[in-house]
Amino acid sequence: MTHEIAVIPGDGIGQEVTPAAVEVLEAIDAVDFDFVEGAAGDAVKAETGEALPEETRELAADADATLFGAAGETAADVILPLRQVVGSFANVRPARSYPGLDAVQPDTDIVFIRENTEGVYKGIESEISEGVTTCTRVITEDASEKIAEYGFSYAKQNGYDDVTIAHKANVMRTTDGLFLDAASAVGEDRDASYDTALMDALAMHLVMNPQDYGVVICPNLAGDMLSDLAAGLVGGLGLLPSANIGEENALFEPVHGSAPDIAGEGIANPSAMILSAAMLLDHLGYDEQGDTVRTAVESVLDSGPRTPDLGGDASTEDVTAAVIEEL
Amino acid sequence: MTHEIAVIPGDGIGQEVTPAAVEVLEAIDAVDFDFVEGAAGDAVKAETGEALPEETRELAADADATLFGAAGETAADVILPLRQVVGSFANVRPARSYPGLDAVQPDTDIVFIRENTEGVYKGIESEISEGVTTCTRVITEDASEKIAEYGFSYAKQNGYDDVTIAHKANVMRTTDGLFLDAASAVGEDRDASYDTALMDALAMHLVMNPQDYGVVICPNLAGDMLSDLAAGLVGGLGLLPSANIGEENALFEPVHGSAPDIAGEGIANPSAMILSAAMLLDHLGYDEQGDTVRTAVESVLDSGPRTPDLGGDASTEDVTAAVIEEL
Ligand SMILES: CC(C)[C@H](C(=O)O)[C@@H](O)C(=O)O
Ligand SMILES: CC(C)[C@H](C(=O)O)[C@@H](O)C(=O)O
Repeated sequence: MTHEIAVIPGDGIGQEVTPAAVEVLEAIDAVDFDFVEGAAGDAVKAETGEALPEETRELAADADATLFGAAGETAADVILPLRQVVGSFANVRPARSYPGLDAVQPDTDIVFIRENTEGVYKGIESEISEGVTTCTRVITEDASEKIAEYGFSYAKQNGYDDVTIAHKANVMRTTDGLFLDAASAVGEDRDASYDTALMDALAMHLVMNPQDYGVVICPNLAGDMLSDLAAGLVGGLGLLPSANIGEENALFEPVHGSAPDIAGEGIANPSAMILSAAMLLDHLGYDEQGDTVRTAVESVLDSGPRTPDLGGDASTEDVTAAVIEEL
Repeated sequence: MTHEIAVIPGDGIGQEVTPAAVEVLEAIDAVDFDFVEGAAGDAVKAETGEALPEETRELAADADATLFGAAGETAADVILPLRQVVGSFANVRPARSYPGLDAVQPDTDIVFIRENTEGVYKGIESEISEGVTTCTRVITEDASEKIAEYGFSYAKQNGYDDVTIAHKANVMRTTDGLFLDAASAVGEDRDASYDTALMDALAMHLVMNPQDYGVVICPNLAGDMLSDLAAGLVGGLGLLPSANIGEENALFEPVHGSAPDIAGEGIANPSAMILSAAMLLDHLGYDEQGDTVRTAVESVLDSGPRTPDLGGDASTEDVTAAVIEEL
């Protein structure tokens, strides 16, 4: 069986790390892929006026899964519609520290399960009079239940004992109140153990005691911030993969952006992107191969060549070759 | 001249740390205070049905300034209206690490200037149909300009070179777009140097490189989270004071809550509350005395008795006595 994968490198270092991940996937003998490349981002917008051309949308819609690199100024115009195209309701963001790498908190292994369809991301904004603007944040019971179901299942399948539901229901009583109630009800129904945490206090506790957390189920924007916070704990965005999971489709992308400051130099850290490809393997049912890729990346992070963001002087290609060597 | 100070200890450790701060203020010979105590919080709600009785509101409205401890379950019902009563538009939250104290990031000295009147805190929520809820976030040009004016002035007066404007204008284009534009325009008008940062990326950078930041001007909820994050960097909420600044009135409170787990044991760390009293002194024009109190707290944190949250076994009273001794 051949899997059709849409590949959208995008801008900046997306152009460098995405081919690296494709190379790694190509080196997995047990799985056949057909890669089809699509354009998106600042460069294609400059050319065509559109950051996400219709062909690219269709590519992602029709593929079995998508690998996306990064986009520059147009990031939101690319990734938000792409998440919709693949029907993503769950954004899965593991933040792990790796042995041998400098980290603010070396004992971190947390997976953020971020609701991926609503909150302020609905894009309902207006200027209701001069200088007065509103943004309508939407929280529904259905979406809250769905992300909690996903989060609790994820914790169980992946052996995480601690589940935390993040919210700010003391201020957003109706919306986050609903999120909190719906997510808690899922926990009760499953007889699962879980905690709830105000997201401000949680930000503090994550910084001080990340080892106390496993899976964190979050509303959309809270998940955006908390997962970046956790990236800081483990050594930066160069290490964080993510999955945007839909019912029948999915998109995999590093948490980092297009990093214009180092783009074109061939020194971008491909780890986050390769780890995103490992999540793609899991998603297609190749858990064993996903593990193989993760183990290879870990081993290279531990004792292989390192890119400058991790204090080394290796190139993207050096790291990629070392990972493939380890497979 | 005698200054009338409303004192609202509230619940839990609020009952322990608030008297400690009052003792310290009483020990400042150069300033005369008249302290008037008011009730608020869970206990008074249980008794009277109201978390913030009208008398307490009036006390805060009429006083020259208010010292507030903490409230339990009713925290939002107490502090949000109190901030309105004193007309607070700026929530000032310094997060500093102290020499000699364990901290995740020992080189942190950041002041969050949090907009304190709008955003999701307007409380405009509804269930528009079963299981579908909305929260209307409001951002105005006036409030955004005002907080930026305050933030840039604060940075100048207090010798901070780095000013950062936090936002999420790539997603909330209209509302945070307005915040970003209005705050940036203030920086331009003043010929001040400043940076802007997406608040998710900022969360990561604050964790990794707090020494790069000085004053951070934030929308309301972003400021709530980012300042708690920074509390985690410097050793926890027991050390963070805050000021809620209005045009003609102000309220001072520790960033921590009522800590029911340790309440009643006499071991709460009074530092955050005493440092809040130091901000009150500054606010009333007694900068010199404010500095004296801060120096005394620092000296005790460095080499005096410590409460259990900082690894010691001293009581609230021991620490308070040591601070007064140092004045
Ligand atoms: C680019 C932006 C729209 C996006 C988001 O806010 O979701 C990014 O920050 C992310 O986390 O993937
Ligand atoms: C208690 C709560 C309403 C409050 C807030 O969100 O402002 C608290 O978290 C704070 O930061 O003072």
